[in-house]
Amino acid sequence: MSLFENKILLPKSELPKFWYNVLPDLPEPMGPYLNADRKPVSPSDLSAIFPQILIEQEVSDQRLHQIPDPVRDALSIWRPTPLVRAKRLENALGVSSRIYFKDESVSPSGSHKSNTAMAQAYFNKEAGITRLTTETGAGQWGTALAIAAKQFGIQARVFMVKISLEQKPYRKILMNFMGAEVLASPSSITEAGRKALKENPEAMGTLGLAISEAVEEAVSRPDTNYVLGSVLNHVILHQTVIGQEVKKQLALIGEKPDYLIACHGGGSNFGGLVAPYVEDILGGKDKITAIAVEPESCPTLTGGKFTYDVGDTAGFTPLMPMYSLGADFQPPAIHAGGLRYHGASPIVSSLLKSKVIEATAVSAADCFKYAQLLYRSELIVPAPESAHALAQTCLTALELEKQGRPGCLVFTLSGHGLLDLAAYQTLQANHSPS
Amino acid sequence: MSLFENKILLPKSELPKFWYNVLPDLPEPMGPYLNADRKPVSPSDLSAIFPQILIEQEVSDQRLHQIPDPVRDALSIWRPTPLVRAKRLENALGVSSRIYFKDESVSPSGSHKSNTAMAQAYFNKEAGITRLTTETGAGQWGTALAIAAKQFGIQARVFMVKISLEQKPYRKILMNFMGAEVLASPSSITEAGRKALKENPEAMGTLGLAISEAVEEAVSRPDTNYVLGSVLNHVILHQTVIGQEVKKQLALIGEKPDYLIACHGGGSNFGGLVAPYVEDILGGKDKITAIAVEPESCPTLTGGKFTYDVGDTAGFTPLMPMYSLGADFQPPAIHAGGLRYHGASPIVSSLLKSKVIEATAVSAADCFKYAQLLYRSELIVPAPESAHALAQTCLTALELEKQGRPGCLVFTLSGHGLLDLAAYQTLQANHSPS
Repeated sequence: MSLFENKILLPKSELPKFWYNVLPDLPEPMGPYLNADRKPVSPSDLSAIFPQILIEQEVSDQRLHQIPDPVRDALSIWRPTPLVRAKRLENALGVSSRIYFKDESVSPSGSHKSNTAMAQAYFNKEAGITRLTTETGAGQWGTALAIAAKQFGIQARVFMVKISLEQKPYRKILMNFMGAEVLASPSSITEAGRKALKENPEAMGTLGLAISEAVEEAVSRPDTNYVLGSVLNHVILHQTVIGQEVKKQLALIGEKPDYLIACHGGGSNFGGLVAPYVEDILGGKDKITAIAVEPESCPTLTGGKFTYDVGDTAGFTPLMPMYSLGADFQPPAIHAGGLRYHGASPIVSSLLKSKVIEATAVSAADCFKYAQLLYRSELIVPAPESAHALAQTCLTALELEKQGRPGCLVFTLSGHGLLDLAAYQTLQANHSPS
Repeated sequence: MSLFENKILLPKSELPKFWYNVLPDLPEPMGPYLNADRKPVSPSDLSAIFPQILIEQEVSDQRLHQIPDPVRDALSIWRPTPLVRAKRLENALGVSSRIYFKDESVSPSGSHKSNTAMAQAYFNKEAGITRLTTETGAGQWGTALAIAAKQFGIQARVFMVKISLEQKPYRKILMNFMGAEVLASPSSITEAGRKALKENPEAMGTLGLAISEAVEEAVSRPDTNYVLGSVLNHVILHQTVIGQEVKKQLALIGEKPDYLIACHGGGSNFGGLVAPYVEDILGGKDKITAIAVEPESCPTLTGGKFTYDVGDTAGFTPLMPMYSLGADFQPPAIHAGGLRYHGASPIVSSLLKSKVIEATAVSAADCFKYAQLLYRSELIVPAPESAHALAQTCLTALELEKQGRPGCLVFTLSGHGLLDLAAYQTLQANHSPS
């Protein structure tokens, strides 16, 4: 291994120069996004809220997209991120599998969300946009956007799902500290928000509704664009730095993954890890099992239907081909706010439908149990979202041990949980054996 | 610079093999600790609460103390820590000085406190102790001790200053998650706590009182020892890995420090940085200005008196030769909980009295201002304690710029502020221009 023993580090020069577009690799071409009248969305339909270059990325058939220098400079503040051999976790589990995690928690926002936030802020800045709106669930995306907007000199307004805002007040403080504005969603400043509050003055919000609010405001102001932290193809494109780095890091130590595991909310973390491996999986030379992990309480991929559905509650977004629990699905108030979403990335949905990848759901009790085990062994508190990937990794490693065939498991630690500790307190009350 | 550009990294093999004891370097020998009857404390007086080896370290005249392998293994989980060139901060300030910070925030507890926590937990374990009590102000020390105790299989009970517990609920959750017990101080389970509550049922606690409670419990139980996170000589000894690494890191890039700056609460962070430089300062070959920075609202070094005083409210600790505001000083509820202490490290006090180092106090407004600047430039939120060192560093760099003589400034980022965000919210309300 490297100089830093359990951490496989890459020099700055190994930061990827290109994003990897997986669209050309999909076994079945993705169906077009549709307007409410079921006619395909045209690029100009999207130009009210997105800059031209992101619209092009969304439908591109070109595999490699050069990362602009200013974005690469911004990413290089914290990238390449470490790949960590979790030996103490392996020992605590009593398994002989090799477990690695890609540590995206070292970013300035504490999660992988900064990868696309920097890119989207840059492209919007270049397009002359001075204001960005977005939604945030757990607060990770909002934090990432607040930081990126500031770096590129753009104002940011974040609609934060009300229940998450109440559970995670520190996130709002952090965004404000960076200079961003944070509003609880449903808010009273948009039609969509007012409608939701009229129906239920106590509404605690959903990601779908927060998206509606942010899109509504972006559509109505020419200086303002909307940015999305997951789901869309261009977001996954920007996250492929994760999987590309993992490939290089594993190659450095002569490893190949048997399992690639990531949690799935909107799909960008999972997609970012797995997209660069899709060709390898399809080539079949090395057997790689890629598992998207979701909470039992919001089982989009494992319990939803593959269909055309909108991405938000009010139906402002196009219809997208994806697994969905229905845009009016009200996820329970689980604490992994980033996984409380009715829909899924069209790319991940397509990969699942084509059986290139698998999906599974884990329980809150297992998330808590293995999050605590990670903290007590590796001394890192995972984000509640990341705890889903971790739990599945541990369960798989234990199963492999039982079968006598240990392997190489890689999961993404998509973020740290230091700003989500209230979630663990609640889980501790409900699930702790100790 | 290194492979990692703005980060000067050392390989694991460069983790110091010895702690550096500064006691033999003091220009005036330190006076002995005294009992209440003003007679010198004997080692056996301390053996009710400390293991023999820590008592020996407390009064040692030997410069180098070998770090036991199990402690070195534990430290190597996160050490050596990076020394970071803060170029974006320099640009934001508009100065041509070179500013570096030693990033102790990367430890499992998020602060430098883990350095001594691991050592103290190990030595107590070796001495057959199964339970440790301690106090914590900001919660950083409690977190560090909770982690260290767990690593070495010891139970931990933490008395947390009540006002800090209320301001920082996440810290308690984190300690509980690791398996430690956390009680608000004043508590009703000790004499000292009951006395304080009787005098004032609304008492919000002080570090001095929390120490009394933790010591009282340790004295009364043979299976239990007490551990202190700062002030004492052996604590500073364990923190000298900081300054030793800084020396190596600066040498790697051909730099020498003109200024060494650290915040001062009990003194362990400041002492850990500066102790390995005391010989150089006294040698006078290179002029190095070492500055201990405290809050204006708790000015122990700059407004206190050099005297013999106890370290706690109830007077359980020996009298120590140090600067003090008086053991009954009630510090205002400033948010840098780690700096709310009436006393000071005897070592730092001795260095200040002998004019080997300087001390200064900075305002809460400057701490907030430069903390925000660090976050917006380097994308790191400093602990409120560390913001004091940062603020002084920025003020010094600006002054040097005015004088046309830029230099090399090194400060310790003793911890990150992600678990202290409520502090910044309050400060924002009081001090923010934006």
